[in-house]
Amino acid sequence: MTIGIIGSGNVGGALGTRWASKGYQVIFGSRDPAGDDMKKLVASAGKSTRAATFKDTAAASDVLLVATPWTAAQDVIAGLGNLTGKIVIDAMNPLLPDLSALALGTNTSGAEQVASWAAGAKVVKAFNTVGNNIMENPAFGQDRPVLFYCGDDAAAKQTVMQLAADIGFDAQDAGALSQARALEPFALLWISLAFTQGWGREFAFKVLRR
Amino acid sequence: MTIGIIGSGNVGGALGTRWASKGYQVIFGSRDPAGDDMKKLVASAGKSTRAATFKDTAAASDVLLVATPWTAAQDVIAGLGNLTGKIVIDAMNPLLPDLSALALGTNTSGAEQVASWAAGAKVVKAFNTVGNNIMENPAFGQDRPVLFYCGDDAAAKQTVMQLAADIGFDAQDAGALSQARALEPFALLWISLAFTQGWGREFAFKVLRR
Repeated sequence: MTIGIIGSGNVGGALGTRWASKGYQVIFGSRDPAGDDMKKLVASAGKSTRAATFKDTAAASDVLLVATPWTAAQDVIAGLGNLTGKIVIDAMNPLLPDLSALALGTNTSGAEQVASWAAGAKVVKAFNTVGNNIMENPAFGQDRPVLFYCGDDAAAKQTVMQLAADIGFDAQDAGALSQARALEPFALLWISLAFTQGWGREFAFKVLRR
Repeated sequence: MTIGIIGSGNVGGALGTRWASKGYQVIFGSRDPAGDDMKKLVASAGKSTRAATFKDTAAASDVLLVATPWTAAQDVIAGLGNLTGKIVIDAMNPLLPDLSALALGTNTSGAEQVASWAAGAKVVKAFNTVGNNIMENPAFGQDRPVLFYCGDDAAAKQTVMQLAADIGFDAQDAGALSQARALEPFALLWISLAFTQGWGREFAFKVLRR
C-alpha cells in the first residue's frame, strides 16, 4: 500500500515518517518536491519514501493524508486529479489563524444561551461530558477521569473546580465560557460512543502527561 | 455553602447526593417537591438535603446546578427569580431528542467540506486531535492515547484504524463522517489546553474502561 502525504509539514512529515518506519511506501507531496525541506525529510524518513508534486503523489497513492493548512485545502484538493475510490484521510482542523476557535462548524453553545437567560449569574459549564453513572462513582481503579469546566468568572470556576475534585474527578479548566463549543461536542462524542458505537456507559477519559 | 439542584433527575440526583455526602447542604429543586420521587431522593441522600420548588431552591442557594432537559431550560431559568451574583453550573447538553447530534452550536465540519471537494473519495477524519509531537511518539509509559476516526465507508475506516494502531495509538471508531463535528472541537480543546491554558504539548487522552 502506498500512502501519499498531501502537505508534508509537521503533521504530514511526522505521520509519513512513522508509516515508512512500519514498512509502508510513502510519497511526500509538496509544492516544491525538489526543495531542501523535502530532501531533508526523505533523507530522514528512509528509502521507502520519496517526494513528488501533489498531483503525482495523488495519482500514485492508494491512501492520501491531507494535512495542509486549512486555508489552502480547497485549492490543493482541486488540483489532485481524479480521487474516485481513494481513501482520503482528513487530518486538518478548520482553525482561525490565531488558533482561538474553529472558523467553521461552530457558532454558539448551550452554555452561551444559558448565560443569556440567567442574567447576572456567573455561568460555568461543567458536569456535562460524562454520564450520571460516572458522576456517582468516578473511580477507575486508581485512575481519576478528567472533568472539564469553562467559564468567564475565575472565582466561580474555582468553586466548581472544588466541587468536581470533592467527588473524585481530575477537574481541569478549559478556558472561557465559549469553550463550551468544544465541551458540548465532547459530550456528544461520549454519548455516541456509549449508545451508538456500543461501548456502554462505563468509560471515561484520563489525561496522560509526560 | 448551599447547592441548589435545578432538575433533580439522573444527573442532578447523582451530583446532589454526592455533594451531600461530602458535607454540603443540598436542596433538590423540582416541579413537584412533595412527590414520591423527591421523597425517595431526599431519604436516600441524607439529612443535609431537602426538596423545594425551583424558585425556592434558587433563592436559598449560593450555587445552582442546572440539569433539566435542554428543551425545558429556558422556561425553568426564567422562573428562578433574581440570579445576580449566583454561580450557575450548566450541566446540560443541547441535544436532539434522539441524542444523535447537537441541536445547537454545530452545523458542519471541515471533514464534510473536504468530502464535498474530494469527489468520489472515501473521506475519513483522523489524526487531527493531537499535535505532531504525539504522532511522532504516542507512548506515555505503558499507556496508549486514544485516536478517534470517523467516516462513512467501513472498509476505509478499517484501513485508517490499522494505520493508527500501527504507530501506537488506541484507534477508536467515532461513527459517521458527521462526527467530525465532535472531533474538530475536540482538537480545539487539545490546542487550547496546550497553548492557552499552559499545559504544553506533551499530553493526550486515554480511554478508561471498567
